Amino acid sequence: MKDLRIPYKIYLEENEMPEAWYNVRADMKKKPAPLLNPGTLQPMRAEELGGVFCEELVQQELNDTDPYIPIPQEIRDFYRMYRPSPLVRAYCLEEKLQTPAHIYYKFEGNNTSGSHKLNSAIAQAYYAKEQGLKGVTTETGAGQWGTALSMACAYFGLDCKVFMVRVSYEQKPFRREVMRTYGASVTPSPSSTTAVGRKILEEHPGTTGSLGCAISEAVEAAVGTPGYRYVLGSVLNQVLLHQSVIGLETKAALDKYGIRPDVIIGCAGGGSNLGGLIAPFMGQKLRGEADPRIIAVEPVSCPSFTRGVYAYDFCDTGMVCPLAKMYTLGSDFIPAPNHAGGLRYHGMSPILSELYAQGLMEAVAVPQTAVFEAAEQFARVEGILPAPESAHAIKAAMDEALKCRETGEAKTIVFGLTGTGYFDLTAYEKFHDGKMDDYVPTDGELAQYRARLPQIG
Amino acid sequence: MKDLRIPYKIYLEENEMPEAWYNVRADMKKKPAPLLNPGTLQPMRAEELGGVFCEELVQQELNDTDPYIPIPQEIRDFYRMYRPSPLVRAYCLEEKLQTPAHIYYKFEGNNTSGSHKLNSAIAQAYYAKEQGLKGVTTETGAGQWGTALSMACAYFGLDCKVFMVRVSYEQKPFRREVMRTYGASVTPSPSSTTAVGRKILEEHPGTTGSLGCAISEAVEAAVGTPGYRYVLGSVLNQVLLHQSVIGLETKAALDKYGIRPDVIIGCAGGGSNLGGLIAPFMGQKLRGEADPRIIAVEPVSCPSFTRGVYAYDFCDTGMVCPLAKMYTLGSDFIPAPNHAGGLRYHGMSPILSELYAQGLMEAVAVPQTAVFEAAEQFARVEGILPAPESAHAIKAAMDEALKCRETGEAKTIVFGLTGTGYFDLTAYEKFHDGKMDDYVPTDGELAQYRARLPQIG
Repeated sequence: MKDLRIPYKIYLEENEMPEAWYNVRADMKKKPAPLLNPGTLQPMRAEELGGVFCEELVQQELNDTDPYIPIPQEIRDFYRMYRPSPLVRAYCLEEKLQTPAHIYYKFEGNNTSGSHKLNSAIAQAYYAKEQGLKGVTTETGAGQWGTALSMACAYFGLDCKVFMVRVSYEQKPFRREVMRTYGASVTPSPSSTTAVGRKILEEHPGTTGSLGCAISEAVEAAVGTPGYRYVLGSVLNQVLLHQSVIGLETKAALDKYGIRPDVIIGCAGGGSNLGGLIAPFMGQKLRGEADPRIIAVEPVSCPSFTRGVYAYDFCDTGMVCPLAKMYTLGSDFIPAPNHAGGLRYHGMSPILSELYAQGLMEAVAVPQTAVFEAAEQFARVEGILPAPESAHAIKAAMDEALKCRETGEAKTIVFGLTGTGYFDLTAYEKFHDGKMDDYVPTDGELAQYRARLPQIG
Repeated sequence: MKDLRIPYKIYLEENEMPEAWYNVRADMKKKPAPLLNPGTLQPMRAEELGGVFCEELVQQELNDTDPYIPIPQEIRDFYRMYRPSPLVRAYCLEEKLQTPAHIYYKFEGNNTSGSHKLNSAIAQAYYAKEQGLKGVTTETGAGQWGTALSMACAYFGLDCKVFMVRVSYEQKPFRREVMRTYGASVTPSPSSTTAVGRKILEEHPGTTGSLGCAISEAVEAAVGTPGYRYVLGSVLNQVLLHQSVIGLETKAALDKYGIRPDVIIGCAGGGSNLGGLIAPFMGQKLRGEADPRIIAVEPVSCPSFTRGVYAYDFCDTGMVCPLAKMYTLGSDFIPAPNHAGGLRYHGMSPILSELYAQGLMEAVAVPQTAVFEAAEQFARVEGILPAPESAHAIKAAMDEALKCRETGEAKTIVFGLTGTGYFDLTAYEKFHDGKMDDYVPTDGELAQYRARLPQIG
């Protein structure tokens, strides 16, 4: 099956790297719904968002008309330290699966943060620096985003305060230590350093925290401190914009060899990686130039797309953030304790939500033991230990490739390998020891969360 | 200082990758001393070595005449999954140091094993497979070699038994888990599964183990099991041969841009990385074609080159292995408990030892807190979290670059960045918490170990 015309890894030359991000909203006829002010229920204006986010990022958040936003030179310089990332032809996996499919993966784990999160972290840190800010605050769950942001802030000499979901803070001391290496301060959330944290601790004394709660704390810490703004690693339009560098590089690498993908697969938590990977291909779909299948993969334990509702909801537990229209399970939804890895956010990127609602993409939910089985198989043949998040995409890609074995079709499958699993070995250990289960929330449980959704429009 | 002619990362095309390893011994007028049979004190013959090592590897071990050994196609195929590794121009570090020096590093951490060790692991696994063996045994200290070998064995479907120094086994459960992911069995050493292990346990009941002891156990386990051989990740000639792929790629990348290095720097434990990195440059030196400075960097806590003696010594604690002539501290030397990371072997590659004895290379010893300071500085500007081992080279390279700032010289400095520090965050934590010290063994201590060296020739 080895096609000598196609190398194992397709690298772009530095001069082939994208000079602008691609803003898929510009090509959407029906745009994603705007963020709403939780007080007035009116669309958030730039002035309002400016209290929380950097000015330039607010412009990017609201811009749904310009298809290309130039990448500032300083950010391109930083990108060059770890980009272009390789697009790998998974020859060994194809052979292992005995499939006629051609499998490619875009590997974003080749940097110390270990994931794609750095693509947006460096952009957000840059704009904060440009605005003359002292620092930024953020939340982190599994720790990939916090690591990436710490690294980006170190580069630009910005202060970085990370609220880390308490359960991760305790279970992942090494993640914490990497952030310290980059000079960030890391606080377990909920904490007593914020009003919202104290309130949550009072109401739920033994809580191990959640992403929604850490977001509330980070926002409060930013809004209450002069010279600080809040930054977020997923969900927002601006983040998907920055992550489009993944898709643009992928498309450029495929174009170099005249390859047109049939299926594009990505894992989806808040949607940053998936939104970035598919952006230019979705653009082609929207403009009628190509029609690849696009598949979002999520855990059965946190099934926002496949079992959530498309509605306005709070982005955080403390309800201090704007409301977003998205596929959501309810802002106080927390995956079962046995859930490993990331992809634990209750909602989903408004852009992806709207594209999904329009039928332009599909979604599947997969159980975690099957995901770890796929991860292990992949590691053994392809030599990369994947993050559990990324392994969701691997699982779905392998399923598609196995279908091709049955039908004999030589489809081209492209998936996003968002990061490495070096900090997830506790989860791998559970898997090896047979201590992992595949808990699926019942309809009754989901209905309870859904019942608490804000009633809007 | 940015030279736009030179990209951040120099990648080779697949067709520019080495097709043969370079055997520096062929160009050495005075060859490294042969391994001796510990019973007869005569040079080990191929038949004797064949009981411990794979046949083809024995040939490579003994071959000091052929300058090039072709790399089998299957190994080159595997190399392509993660090679060529990038040669990175450290523009950000140069700027941070305000140095006119040009700094390059060859980054070998871009694979799941996280280090250069995979280059030899895959070769050794391949030859074991070719010989029809069932499996291999080995030892691992910090865990890089064991991880690499597990991965290589998974690829070729070989059984892999790893004896892991007990202190690492306990302090690095994640390393152990990665090896399990690749299907290896991991036993803490000393163990009761071998005679030598039982003997050591009896004599030193509370021992936390050492590399020398784990080697003895792994050799016993191989020799006592039909279909098994022992493999080693450093020190041996065959390992340096395989690792020459690092130097060959580095030289090819530099040649592409007409760059001639003034100084080449590598960390040295057993010498596998350093020997591989410098091989083709040392070849030039030996043939009188170029004369770069070559610097080995070792920890002050395990100073084989700088404070050891050049003499025949045992390679292992149990004294079951052949004797090698090398710079050594004595086969029962163990670095102080506070020593972090690898580079803890009592001896040194016989090839490098002979080159050092001939004055063809220099050596410096650096204290570990300075090494971690350098590591952290490097991480913040270059975006790669280095392994403590690799950080020794970073420290020395930064020192050279700072000298250039004083003299105004625009020297070209190349160093080897052997791997990533994802599994070394306990050490980083110690450093951040101020719990790391710079213990230097006293002359009296070293003299005690030296007094127990075998008296040969």
